[in-house]
Amino acid sequence: MALVRVHNFSISLDGFGTGEDQSLEAPFGHAGHRLMEWAFETRTFRAMGIHGVTEGSFGVDEAFASQWAPGIGAEIMGRNKFGPQRGPWEDDGWRGWWGDDPVFHTPVVVLTHHPRPTLEMEGGTTFHFVDADPAEALAQARELAGGLDVRIGGGVSTVRQFLEADLIDHLHVVVVPIVLGRGERLWDGLEALEQRFDVEATPSPSGVVHLVLTRRAGA
Amino acid sequence: MALVRVHNFSISLDGFGTGEDQSLEAPFGHAGHRLMEWAFETRTFRAMGIHGVTEGSFGVDEAFASQWAPGIGAEIMGRNKFGPQRGPWEDDGWRGWWGDDPVFHTPVVVLTHHPRPTLEMEGGTTFHFVDADPAEALAQARELAGGLDVRIGGGVSTVRQFLEADLIDHLHVVVVPIVLGRGERLWDGLEALEQRFDVEATPSPSGVVHLVLTRRAGA
Repeated sequence: MALVRVHNFSISLDGFGTGEDQSLEAPFGHAGHRLMEWAFETRTFRAMGIHGVTEGSFGVDEAFASQWAPGIGAEIMGRNKFGPQRGPWEDDGWRGWWGDDPVFHTPVVVLTHHPRPTLEMEGGTTFHFVDADPAEALAQARELAGGLDVRIGGGVSTVRQFLEADLIDHLHVVVVPIVLGRGERLWDGLEALEQRFDVEATPSPSGVVHLVLTRRAGA
Repeated sequence: MALVRVHNFSISLDGFGTGEDQSLEAPFGHAGHRLMEWAFETRTFRAMGIHGVTEGSFGVDEAFASQWAPGIGAEIMGRNKFGPQRGPWEDDGWRGWWGDDPVFHTPVVVLTHHPRPTLEMEGGTTFHFVDADPAEALAQARELAGGLDVRIGGGVSTVRQFLEADLIDHLHVVVVPIVLGRGERLWDGLEALEQRFDVEATPSPSGVVHLVLTRRAGA
């Protein structure tokens, strides 16, 4: 059976996956870029053009970062990851943060209470806007994934909802050594999560700690 | 200058240093022993008689655990660490959790709004009951420590108050891979703490991650 995976999901020491006061200019709110700085140094993220260059490290951060695409046939993301708008869609030409040729190169299911027509982009990315609960959205994503794995792309509440619904098999969390103090917490409402997952920790010279939560056999 | 240190302070993945519903029978509330299980396997904790045996590991958990006593001249603890009573002291004969010969073997300043006479125990431990703010308590503990370092022994709110008052030089936190969901959080109110500390992470085969926060030169 294909897996449901989360990759490169960064949180602060105090468990926040994003800061407060998110906006178009500050998608992570007062956290700024600090949660993703470890990733900007990796070849995988640089190849996405996020820093406009193609060099990058081959260290443990890259080893983890590079896992996010291989074997993935579709992504599910929350609407807030797709864009900063809220409420009904306006005709503002917004096509996501990622340009004409988004980094996904697969179908992407965008969870929203306001469905709209599918958006076909260059390079194989297609955004499907779906009003569905996690299990229904996953069933659609599995159809679109053609037998490959499905990635849950975030944001925080989307990952948390899929964990609450017990739909995730592999969760890669990156703990960044900062104390954000406010924002959206990943672990809230997930008491005793460890009973369903084995947890492995690997520190990086960059200062972050990679946590890999793997669903236990039989759990 | 002598340092102010915290050692072997365990928190859950979601940042709780103790669970909910603390009592005489359950000093860590619904967390039970889970936050301290890593330590029970170490020689240092076994030598305290906590498990009644004297064997134990020499691994990385022991390497960290063993740092808690050397160089320490006094401890400061919150009243809730000393005992489960609240409000004015009753004549109940309570002399702490640690028997006639407590593990500290130094003066111990117990923070309480209800001062009471000093309690001299066997083996060099003396409990001083003091109604003071963190800076005042630290001044008293430094006097008692005779030039050695002062350890902040917990519980959660005591450590947090000393961090808020910027009185801690060395903080050893042990992240245990469990999600407690409720209890008392260590990091609350400490936004941007990383600007004052360098953070080093070391994982243990036992599954915990040792974080060492060291005050930055000049911070």
